[in-house]
Amino acid sequence: MSIVVVGSVALDSVKTPFGEVQEVLGGSATYFSVSASFFTDVKLVAVVGEDFPETHIKLLESRSIDLSGLQKRPGKTFRWKGKYGYDLNEAITLDTKLNVFENFTPVIPDSYRNAEYVFLANIDPDLQSKVLKSVEKPKLIALDTMNFWIEGKPNELKKAMANIDILIINDGETREFAKEPNIVRAAQKILKYGPKMIIVKRGEYGAMMFSDNSVFATPAYPLHTINDPTGAGDTFAGGFMGYIASIDRFDEPAIRQGIIFGSVMASFAVEDFSLNRLMRLEKDEIRKRFKEFKKLSHFDDFHETFGI
Amino acid sequence: MSIVVVGSVALDSVKTPFGEVQEVLGGSATYFSVSASFFTDVKLVAVVGEDFPETHIKLLESRSIDLSGLQKRPGKTFRWKGKYGYDLNEAITLDTKLNVFENFTPVIPDSYRNAEYVFLANIDPDLQSKVLKSVEKPKLIALDTMNFWIEGKPNELKKAMANIDILIINDGETREFAKEPNIVRAAQKILKYGPKMIIVKRGEYGAMMFSDNSVFATPAYPLHTINDPTGAGDTFAGGFMGYIASIDRFDEPAIRQGIIFGSVMASFAVEDFSLNRLMRLEKDEIRKRFKEFKKLSHFDDFHETFGI
Repeated sequence: MSIVVVGSVALDSVKTPFGEVQEVLGGSATYFSVSASFFTDVKLVAVVGEDFPETHIKLLESRSIDLSGLQKRPGKTFRWKGKYGYDLNEAITLDTKLNVFENFTPVIPDSYRNAEYVFLANIDPDLQSKVLKSVEKPKLIALDTMNFWIEGKPNELKKAMANIDILIINDGETREFAKEPNIVRAAQKILKYGPKMIIVKRGEYGAMMFSDNSVFATPAYPLHTINDPTGAGDTFAGGFMGYIASIDRFDEPAIRQGIIFGSVMASFAVEDFSLNRLMRLEKDEIRKRFKEFKKLSHFDDFHETFGI
Repeated sequence: MSIVVVGSVALDSVKTPFGEVQEVLGGSATYFSVSASFFTDVKLVAVVGEDFPETHIKLLESRSIDLSGLQKRPGKTFRWKGKYGYDLNEAITLDTKLNVFENFTPVIPDSYRNAEYVFLANIDPDLQSKVLKSVEKPKLIALDTMNFWIEGKPNELKKAMANIDILIINDGETREFAKEPNIVRAAQKILKYGPKMIIVKRGEYGAMMFSDNSVFATPAYPLHTINDPTGAGDTFAGGFMGYIASIDRFDEPAIRQGIIFGSVMASFAVEDFSLNRLMRLEKDEIRKRFKEFKKLSHFDDFHETFGI
């Protein structure tokens, strides 16, 4: 099954304690698409400026990503500049130049309209709602957002959220959106806004899933080398949705497996800057790390003889 | 098998966003002992002052904890006063009065000397080393410490660490001790100081275990109600060591089960202030939460048909 993703394609300049890159390929839709492309067909909706390098187009095409929905507009491509300290969980934004992204109006090509899976990456919640009107009955819709919209357009966000299946959101944003410090209570509160399920991304601490009748929690894959956490959340979403769409199932076991694949893909992405690690990733490495994930997090039932 | 624990018995005054208590029973050896007592025999070594309430002695006796090693000294009992904000992961110490604990010299009663399991709770590393000379060949020794000793007596701590099996330490302290922000590298560095295994406590984010040839990671039990995190780490250690000692096994599967029991016990402890929740805990609740832990963190292998 194919996935439509709507989000940003950007040129990122990033500095971490382990290196620095200038104007490299980035953006939520980019990370999502490349990650999901290891699992299924991806149809991208985004905008770039006239300065967007042809090599980046070729890179996306090399992953068989459908670019019919990638608009090229007069002006410059969206640029983001940020840095990380040793606490790699939090990015510090140094500069944001929206450029052509400022007036982005997603246009869904006719060939995308019957896609079964839709991912609304972090954009204006009004645009997220608009996109949902342009697609015909997808089986599953997931949405990501950020503190900027939680603070600036909370009502529009709640409106968008009433029409989706899965909210994918990070730890701090979950607490902020619900105005509730306890993550379990925060998730339960947000579930009342409409989504059937919430997946909470916790960076190096893993991920959690909450629905009305179940909870799932996983640690992150313990990494010896993390060079750049940029795009980890969208790469996670790409692995998650990619797997779900590829097997066309979203029952509880499939959701859990999807969360592990999301974690696996994110763990690869952060090993290098930009899309570098994902672009040299082999399918067998993905399968292998999933199995390692199971090995490092599973445990046997207790010995019945224990003294309680 | 029985466990000797050496640590503090204290009177705590604690304020959290959810309530406040004055001069309630606390201390590392207390939390550890009560937690471990659900699994096996516990022999406590600590000191209290003349003002230590008889009701607290009775409480510890009601859990069948051996108090032969509990000294009563002229003066007042150790007091700790602290508070927590909404981020319950970090305590703010408001006041510490060591009182009789200032000149604490652990004396190991003869009846304790052949204990098979030893837990050195967070005390002066010189005292930790001294205790190890008073016990006859235990099968397994675990040690906890804190930033105060990491900063003040790093060499003495490394010396104590050369003679133990398991270091149980929190997340931030692991990074601080190793002077390394990446938790995997930090743990690998500390393993070189001597311990065969490191268990990293991460509060609401769970726990990890590192040894030379394996890694285990678990999330924490997702709690709807957390009233007071005081003692969670020692309660964790008590559940872990208690289980290990009760089945008298510390192979990899047993260690993993022990970490889950530690997490289970800590999850109960934080639901109420002081030892309140542990004192009304039933053995069946422990077994039940262990099984829930498995249900919330395990996942099936992926569908081989997925599109990679």
